[in-house]
Amino acid sequence: MTNTGEALGEFEAIAEFFAPLAGKGAPAFELTDDAAVYTPPPGQALVLTKDAMVEGVHFLPADPPDLIARKLLRVNLSDLAAMGADAVGYLQATAVRPADAASWLKAFARGLAEDQAIFGCRLWGGDTTSTPGPITLSLTAIGLTPPGAELRRNGARVGDLIAVTGTIGDGALGLLAQRGELPGLGAEELAYLKGRYLLPQPRLAVGRCLRGLAHAALDVSDGLVADMAHICETSKLAARLRVADIPLSPAARAVIKRDPRRLADIFKGDDYELLFTIPPAKAAELGAIAAKTGVPITLIGEVVEGSAVRLFNADGSAFDAAGLGFTHF
Amino acid sequence: MTNTGEALGEFEAIAEFFAPLAGKGAPAFELTDDAAVYTPPPGQALVLTKDAMVEGVHFLPADPPDLIARKLLRVNLSDLAAMGADAVGYLQATAVRPADAASWLKAFARGLAEDQAIFGCRLWGGDTTSTPGPITLSLTAIGLTPPGAELRRNGARVGDLIAVTGTIGDGALGLLAQRGELPGLGAEELAYLKGRYLLPQPRLAVGRCLRGLAHAALDVSDGLVADMAHICETSKLAARLRVADIPLSPAARAVIKRDPRRLADIFKGDDYELLFTIPPAKAAELGAIAAKTGVPITLIGEVVEGSAVRLFNADGSAFDAAGLGFTHF
Repeated sequence: MTNTGEALGEFEAIAEFFAPLAGKGAPAFELTDDAAVYTPPPGQALVLTKDAMVEGVHFLPADPPDLIARKLLRVNLSDLAAMGADAVGYLQATAVRPADAASWLKAFARGLAEDQAIFGCRLWGGDTTSTPGPITLSLTAIGLTPPGAELRRNGARVGDLIAVTGTIGDGALGLLAQRGELPGLGAEELAYLKGRYLLPQPRLAVGRCLRGLAHAALDVSDGLVADMAHICETSKLAARLRVADIPLSPAARAVIKRDPRRLADIFKGDDYELLFTIPPAKAAELGAIAAKTGVPITLIGEVVEGSAVRLFNADGSAFDAAGLGFTHF
Repeated sequence: MTNTGEALGEFEAIAEFFAPLAGKGAPAFELTDDAAVYTPPPGQALVLTKDAMVEGVHFLPADPPDLIARKLLRVNLSDLAAMGADAVGYLQATAVRPADAASWLKAFARGLAEDQAIFGCRLWGGDTTSTPGPITLSLTAIGLTPPGAELRRNGARVGDLIAVTGTIGDGALGLLAQRGELPGLGAEELAYLKGRYLLPQPRLAVGRCLRGLAHAALDVSDGLVADMAHICETSKLAARLRVADIPLSPAARAVIKRDPRRLADIFKGDDYELLFTIPPAKAAELGAIAAKTGVPITLIGEVVEGSAVRLFNADGSAFDAAGLGFTHF
């Protein structure tokens, strides 16, 4: 833990806002040392990921700092979920403007406190610095899996069924809602979509259940088709997706009913749902996993020979992506 | 590994510049998965640290990207050195302006490649995103120590001698040199100081040798006195430092000879030397460590009862810090 940039009283911010998130003792010793020391449980592998968020690029200047903190943590936890890992700790770096650093960091740390209690992980360290520019954040999340149990992208096999958790498109539509670009939509739908944009749900419980079941998995951040393409590329196979089966929330359905061209937006990512492939013989277990975790799981396609992602209508005809105004994901 | 911000061709940048730094297989699978998977050697503890750097705050816009990359990695490795750890891997997040992202990231990755070969660690993942504002970087370094062997800040004891590696003040004076604020200094001295500012030397080899010898340690980033105060605070003791014994490079001596008030600058930090306390009975071993590692080690004071850092002249009288224009570190 090094503290740089004199202007903001980082030492005070760290002691007051962040040290309580670290707690006494190892790994992070209330952030009083240069680094954290973590002794993993015997026989476990560590899973590590790091994502950044930039004001104006990944969040809006008006988004509440506590929700930004929770989203930052959650998008990283979503990567752990995609690997089938359990979260144990995280390190964060914040670059904030000196003028409102104290109030911003206070709210930011409050958000982290809420979510680390929910997800069972602790702050292990980081850096708080000043910037003249947009608020820029990054977080490194650390998880555990039994060795060899991690879910990879490259294991899909021909004949696998393709499944997805939750609903798709809410994050991208929620950003439009937050920007005021969905006029006329009901207040309830707007609130739901904004909530999905601000606070994704990392599917850690589902990821854990998929160890030993899923052949390939990732979390949907770039967009359903783009991320399916990542699985196809690394697995050297193709995918067929049934557009009518892609799970949509009532709010997303209401948006698309008002303007059918909004269907294009559901492919824009920021979903943080798990997309995975599973052999047909194991698909029967998905119902029990959905029941156990409270997260809907929907079959939306299958893995085939080839090298592309193709979209189909319910009747088996090719889906006209160009007609939606997009030909390239 | 999630890739956000469409404008810069991150997928191409990752595949071309960063995947070779990760290599095939675990932990990072050429950056094709959501996270890295690392199985630590049995019986080892992990040491984790994360530091950020912001253009205009921690580096100058004209600093070469490959040297910025190496400094970013090295300031984190310096934190590992301070804990007595060996480096094994790192994750990085870069937020760069789309206009020059490709050329900037190419040079940045070249710098990482050079240094990961020197320090024996590999890229485990990260995030490449766009920003409209200053280039903002962060890096998480992961190291290993035998459990319980890590060096902490809180272990200093009364009677310990205080030692420091290398020379102090070159980083802060090098920043002045880089800004053109040391007119009249010789070309050789300028080049030396600029090099020390741009490319700190993480003292990993010394840190490893200090396991089981040093009672307390950290790396000097905030400034010699400020960092000594961190050891004093966590150890609940005081320190006496002999200003005349603080090791200075010939270039730093030349600067101070020209303008004695520049002595104040040597306390401004960015040194990335190890500052540690060691019982007098063990101090005889420091000569062998210096010889083995090629890094000078200098005794500069001792740990006493109390709660402050006090500076003294060679004759034992109190050093007049206020006369240098600073009373508060």
